[in-house]
Amino acid sequence: MPASPIRRLVKYANAAEARGIKVYRLNIGQPDVPTPQVAFEAIRNIDRTVLEYSPSEGMYSLRCKLCEYYHKFNIDVDVDDIIVTTGGSEAVLFAFMACLDPGDEIIVPEPAYANYMAFAISAGAKIVTIPSTIDNGFQLPPMQEFEKLINERTKGILICNPNNPTGYLYTMKEMLQLRDLVKRYDLFLFSDEVYREFCYTGAPYISAFHLPGVEEQVVLIDSVSKRYNECGIRIGAIITKHKELKANIMKFCQARLSPPLLGQIVAEASIDTPAEYMLETYNEYVERRKFLVDRINMIPGCYTPIPMGAFYTVVRLPVDDADRFCLWCLTDFEWEGQTVFMAPASGFYVNPDLGRDQVRMAYVLKTEELGKALEVLAHALKAYPGRTI
Amino acid sequence: MPASPIRRLVKYANAAEARGIKVYRLNIGQPDVPTPQVAFEAIRNIDRTVLEYSPSEGMYSLRCKLCEYYHKFNIDVDVDDIIVTTGGSEAVLFAFMACLDPGDEIIVPEPAYANYMAFAISAGAKIVTIPSTIDNGFQLPPMQEFEKLINERTKGILICNPNNPTGYLYTMKEMLQLRDLVKRYDLFLFSDEVYREFCYTGAPYISAFHLPGVEEQVVLIDSVSKRYNECGIRIGAIITKHKELKANIMKFCQARLSPPLLGQIVAEASIDTPAEYMLETYNEYVERRKFLVDRINMIPGCYTPIPMGAFYTVVRLPVDDADRFCLWCLTDFEWEGQTVFMAPASGFYVNPDLGRDQVRMAYVLKTEELGKALEVLAHALKAYPGRTI
Repeated sequence: MPASPIRRLVKYANAAEARGIKVYRLNIGQPDVPTPQVAFEAIRNIDRTVLEYSPSEGMYSLRCKLCEYYHKFNIDVDVDDIIVTTGGSEAVLFAFMACLDPGDEIIVPEPAYANYMAFAISAGAKIVTIPSTIDNGFQLPPMQEFEKLINERTKGILICNPNNPTGYLYTMKEMLQLRDLVKRYDLFLFSDEVYREFCYTGAPYISAFHLPGVEEQVVLIDSVSKRYNECGIRIGAIITKHKELKANIMKFCQARLSPPLLGQIVAEASIDTPAEYMLETYNEYVERRKFLVDRINMIPGCYTPIPMGAFYTVVRLPVDDADRFCLWCLTDFEWEGQTVFMAPASGFYVNPDLGRDQVRMAYVLKTEELGKALEVLAHALKAYPGRTI
Repeated sequence: MPASPIRRLVKYANAAEARGIKVYRLNIGQPDVPTPQVAFEAIRNIDRTVLEYSPSEGMYSLRCKLCEYYHKFNIDVDVDDIIVTTGGSEAVLFAFMACLDPGDEIIVPEPAYANYMAFAISAGAKIVTIPSTIDNGFQLPPMQEFEKLINERTKGILICNPNNPTGYLYTMKEMLQLRDLVKRYDLFLFSDEVYREFCYTGAPYISAFHLPGVEEQVVLIDSVSKRYNECGIRIGAIITKHKELKANIMKFCQARLSPPLLGQIVAEASIDTPAEYMLETYNEYVERRKFLVDRINMIPGCYTPIPMGAFYTVVRLPVDDADRFCLWCLTDFEWEGQTVFMAPASGFYVNPDLGRDQVRMAYVLKTEELGKALEVLAHALKAYPGRTI
């Protein structure tokens, strides 16, 4: 399994900090927003004598609560359709392991979340990618491109909606095209929807479960990490109505015994997070997004489309090679004792020729910090020997 | 992946309870001992505003604390040798995935913990077993038996010490034989030592890390679940001094982002569990073990060797087929409104001919309950149509 370019850079970022340099970390999806109080109350008031195994499929009370939560989004699922996992990561891993045999293929529009590739490799399967492009804001590639790649080993299509890393939100038209495709070729539609609370443009969030006629083919991946700012509790879920698949996934769940008990207690309580908290967090991201996008597009040679959801955006930079530039920022550059840590987009593309001049930025810092980070970036771009303008 | 025979029986046990029958559950490793107070204090006093990702290799402070803990057992490891995992289960899975390519083999004395098989299958690898026998208390099989099975695909030997399901504790002589073998054939020695606190006979606990000359080949699997009765927090560890292997394991750790934060906080605090608690728990198991073994061996046709560690024992029953008998106890039998749920040993054997008349019992209930459970068992054996005496 290859190490991602982001991870290779972490030690350089740490080293820069050790040299006393302030590093603005735009590289990761770890928001600075506090976890809701209901989450802390749940663990402070824990009333148990044994921290025992929970059921392999997750606590019944949490699954009921999740069910209620999904109903609010018109996602028509039953308690028995929900399997609690150790983070969204395990949800992806188990979904792949249960659906794919070695040699099987899944089609994914790229750029895509790097760990999908890692998990597919763990399952012995192959990720086949179709490029989406920054020039049209990373829309879904045309259906013909998907059809060209479908063969007897193709088991499914994977999307992330709203998208990490691009922030793209698939339209109803695009989702219906995907529906037709998975129906025609009898494929699974893996849909990672962990950022559903973060849609900014007024365009509707379309869950894969909103698509009529493919309910049995949808494998929804979820996580409470991002929406309640509790990435550390490691609670996710797989939602599927496919009985045989459910039974297969359960075998993996049983082998790892149970998801984390304390995280489940926190997740269950977090679903009751007050609407004010959710709105405040949402508004904060709206503000950061506007701020970041406006500022980026004012730096000569930089371009980012307006992300519609999640809290990432992919940015084109006027550099020869974004891997080299990101490393250079951490090793050879500083401006007034500051530098910036961005994720080279190469980690999100399987095709080594794509996105060479792109980075992913996460707007997980306050606008004031984002402002400073972009000021540093502008200076870095002026000083970088490999700049292209 | 096949479902284990224990799991197939769970629904019948639940159904029996739903019919109002008291079911004594000797089938699982979920102790009834309370979790130590220090664990609860740690989460009640949590002082954070964000429940954020922890490092993929685990919190530094926990790894330091674990290091201190191992030093008390003369296990000479460094903080950097310790990778925190989501339970011992993930430790086994990642160790296998990082060490084994599809088609590779590991040799395991059977009976063995059923989930090893599941994890090996996940890694695309093959478990090759050597029978140990109840007639000599499940000693390590002779080295010639191992040597017969070693070929170019053999990557390692796996032991569990003290053993689940047999309760056997490997002697210094046996451990040195294993050392010589892994040294001669350059194999990994996977050693699951999660029950080290539970050794009852005065015979010493020999860690794989006590063996001189194979330090780089040892992959120690650990978990805090059993020793602090906190199975639900899902915190385990892989300990290895093999640099390349460590780097490989870290790639899987990074793909799943981080182990559970709250579990790590609890685990770190639990290492300071007062000696009185540990001794009290230990004494409780000593008493239950003696009670269980004495009573079992008094039931006509039943036999169990004296387990030296852990909290399980394998029992030979006078029945035609233990799978059938265990199911029958849950579906067709009750005595004074009670029945008993045992784990058929077939789930711990790969060879379908072995252990057909054996069950695993966990002594995780109070002696009073154990006494009732065995009384029920004696009646069940009298009534069972497939009894052999």
